[in-house]
Amino acid sequence: MTEHYDVVVLGAGSGNTVIDDRFAHLRVAIVERGPFGGTCVNRGCIPSKMYVHAADLLTGAARGPALGVRTAASAADQAAWARLRDRVTSRIDAVARSGEDYRRGLDFVDVLRGTGRFTGPGALEVEDADGGITPITADEVVIATGSRPVVPDLPGLHDVPHVTSDSVMRLDELPRRMVVIGGGYVGCELAHVFAALGVEVVQVESEDVLLSAQDADVADVVTRASRDRWDVRTGARLERAELLDDGSARLELDDGSHVETDLVLVAIGRQTNADLLDLDRAGVPVDDDGLVVVDEHQRAADGVWALGDASSSPPLKHVANQDARVVQHNLLHPDDLVASDHRHVPQAVFTEPQVAAVGLTEAAAREQGIDVAVGRKDVADTAYGWALQSGPDDDDPAGPGGFAKVLVDRRTGLLVGAHVVGPMAATLIQPLVQAISSDVPVRGLARGQYWIHPAPTELVEGALLAVEEALGG
Amino acid sequence: MTEHYDVVVLGAGSGNTVIDDRFAHLRVAIVERGPFGGTCVNRGCIPSKMYVHAADLLTGAARGPALGVRTAASAADQAAWARLRDRVTSRIDAVARSGEDYRRGLDFVDVLRGTGRFTGPGALEVEDADGGITPITADEVVIATGSRPVVPDLPGLHDVPHVTSDSVMRLDELPRRMVVIGGGYVGCELAHVFAALGVEVVQVESEDVLLSAQDADVADVVTRASRDRWDVRTGARLERAELLDDGSARLELDDGSHVETDLVLVAIGRQTNADLLDLDRAGVPVDDDGLVVVDEHQRAADGVWALGDASSSPPLKHVANQDARVVQHNLLHPDDLVASDHRHVPQAVFTEPQVAAVGLTEAAAREQGIDVAVGRKDVADTAYGWALQSGPDDDDPAGPGGFAKVLVDRRTGLLVGAHVVGPMAATLIQPLVQAISSDVPVRGLARGQYWIHPAPTELVEGALLAVEEALGG
Repeated sequence: MTEHYDVVVLGAGSGNTVIDDRFAHLRVAIVERGPFGGTCVNRGCIPSKMYVHAADLLTGAARGPALGVRTAASAADQAAWARLRDRVTSRIDAVARSGEDYRRGLDFVDVLRGTGRFTGPGALEVEDADGGITPITADEVVIATGSRPVVPDLPGLHDVPHVTSDSVMRLDELPRRMVVIGGGYVGCELAHVFAALGVEVVQVESEDVLLSAQDADVADVVTRASRDRWDVRTGARLERAELLDDGSARLELDDGSHVETDLVLVAIGRQTNADLLDLDRAGVPVDDDGLVVVDEHQRAADGVWALGDASSSPPLKHVANQDARVVQHNLLHPDDLVASDHRHVPQAVFTEPQVAAVGLTEAAAREQGIDVAVGRKDVADTAYGWALQSGPDDDDPAGPGGFAKVLVDRRTGLLVGAHVVGPMAATLIQPLVQAISSDVPVRGLARGQYWIHPAPTELVEGALLAVEEALGG
Repeated sequence: MTEHYDVVVLGAGSGNTVIDDRFAHLRVAIVERGPFGGTCVNRGCIPSKMYVHAADLLTGAARGPALGVRTAASAADQAAWARLRDRVTSRIDAVARSGEDYRRGLDFVDVLRGTGRFTGPGALEVEDADGGITPITADEVVIATGSRPVVPDLPGLHDVPHVTSDSVMRLDELPRRMVVIGGGYVGCELAHVFAALGVEVVQVESEDVLLSAQDADVADVVTRASRDRWDVRTGARLERAELLDDGSARLELDDGSHVETDLVLVAIGRQTNADLLDLDRAGVPVDDDGLVVVDEHQRAADGVWALGDASSSPPLKHVANQDARVVQHNLLHPDDLVASDHRHVPQAVFTEPQVAAVGLTEAAAREQGIDVAVGRKDVADTAYGWALQSGPDDDDPAGPGGFAKVLVDRRTGLLVGAHVVGPMAATLIQPLVQAISSDVPVRGLARGQYWIHPAPTELVEGALLAVEEALGG
């Protein structure tokens, strides 16, 4: 007896948010092999930012004496690590549990524990932890299976103590030494966290800078700030790993150097889980990166929808949230489909200094042949920036080393990119997200509103005024 | 021989920014009795925020252990106070000096040290520190004389150790105990600073709450948070003071209680300095509060302009800056006058939690008969808020005790007020300032742009979504 559902959602991360009371007249199944909440709640945004806030408190306290303030920060011992970790995990585990409990309490929803995959168009099977197979059929399938960290198949790597972002936030013991492989946003945020906790961090990145996908000036600031705090090895790749007698690891890099460590954190990127779904059996197309190919309505095939990391890149939760709202609407209103809008997706990296961006980098804008006007304001040249400095010549990148930079297309007068590096960057970027999303001319934007003096927002005001000057009278 | 000037600027705070190279064909005098930079640089925004950042580091470090982080904060000893104070004052004094040096180096500007006052229309005199009088005449006079703290004439107050915001930031010694008279923004910011530094603070406020001019819900959060950290006596007024034998003060309040202290900080408000200018001799009108009455072009009389605290209320630097730009333009373009816009002036209080607002309070909106929809989001219900909490039930007002609240006129669909209390409030308010200033409909504002997950800005997104729900489908 194969159960039939009106809607089957594969994945209880962002996919779980698709289903609300408006689906109560339907039969719905949610298929999930892990805890409810997906990457964001369990292994991503939420716990990482809880750790980052703790790290920020530590670096702030360590900075105090330079500013004439009697604060102090100590490396975490095992007891402190346990307290911090348990605070984080108990909070997120409760969220995951209550999310699942809520679903199980609904008459119209079945929670199917296991891994779902297609067996044909509208046909799936769910494999539970014991290998039991449950076949189901569905009118509509929502692919919301997310992504997972990539672990490269390098000699010896699987023999040495190694973790990914999936597991590093639940370590039993804090290691004395950690090597972070990768200088993208995951590697950089976690290097900041563990360095702040007192772990001896070595970070390995094949590009010449950390955060190489960011605007070059931003990447430069973050790379320099990171080098001040831990051992950053750019232009180097991990080649092989070897387990030493004491249980630690010896890593060889392709620049001929090596490093010994207690734990390797692999953070070289993420890959979609869509490859686990036997999508070919349902005629669902994927691109070269394995992402499900969807139309503007997030539809991948007849009766198949996809959202979040399964189909969108970069894998960001605020994108997945929007995708989920689009899929939700389109399932409920098949005759009035709405489109998703992935044009102006901002992103942030919660390092120290913090990074946020929307739109094009300066290099990308020039590459696209845009005649671009650049406006820049340094944190050190704002009143708020003075509060962060130990003296007028203090170039502390955790504070005044930062800047805001806005890029305007001279032809249209519109914003094409904005980049902030420095304290509160993820918050400061929002007025620029608002501007780029609503296509308002940059000229007049700074003077068309007040900016509180001396708030951090004067950084954005200053960058906007600078670009107006660059645009000319 | 009376010197004649094309433009005389009274006051080298915001007034100083009026003059730039475009005035080089004119003869200009800048009259100032104190350091260049005015209240903001020397006694206001800038140094207070440098102290507030230090205080925020201290409270952050003190909070660490509750979050599983090994940070610590110690009360300032005299040596620490001296380091902090000297860092602040050396920075701002350098700014004031370089501002004056720059002016003195310009051929077309005379810096006249002393107190200016009118002797007739277009006629003034400047009294220097020794009582010497210099008469001058001017085609155009810019009144930019700012404001000063009010010290009430209460029995005994002048006999006991007392300071105002003018002097408290340069104290020779940090007192063990301080009574702050006043629960407005100045009193609250400085109470936060000195409490964080370890001073035993008692704050006296005649209203029932601190920050009584703010939205009632905001004032409530700040009052509760302050009570957690120092002795807040609301509904009480200082009645008399008495000098004790040991040099300390005994203060009697009108509720029958009393308090002994080492220093009284008087922060009951500010008054314009325009009363010192003999304005009647030049036919310059003032209102009941003593503020210079100006038209929309910041003109007070023929050939007389005013800006900043001399004419605008509330006395905020970002208002003074705008006024100064308007006066500057109008002096340079007498046939093409522009108007100032004081409609949507945001303001912030850099307490802990921080406060920011633009537009009407909820009570004021209802009083004006506006049919108002309210949307509110609590910090504790955002992902970022979780990072600030020691546990799910932690209502720490320095963090998750905060909220954002937006008020929309149901008739127009436009924002009429916005209030944020919590971390980074002064930064979080900006997208709402942008919205209220550009008259964009609130409906669609949240979904018309991405909000980075899990950035603090989700607080504002949540309040906007809540008000859309309140507005109904």
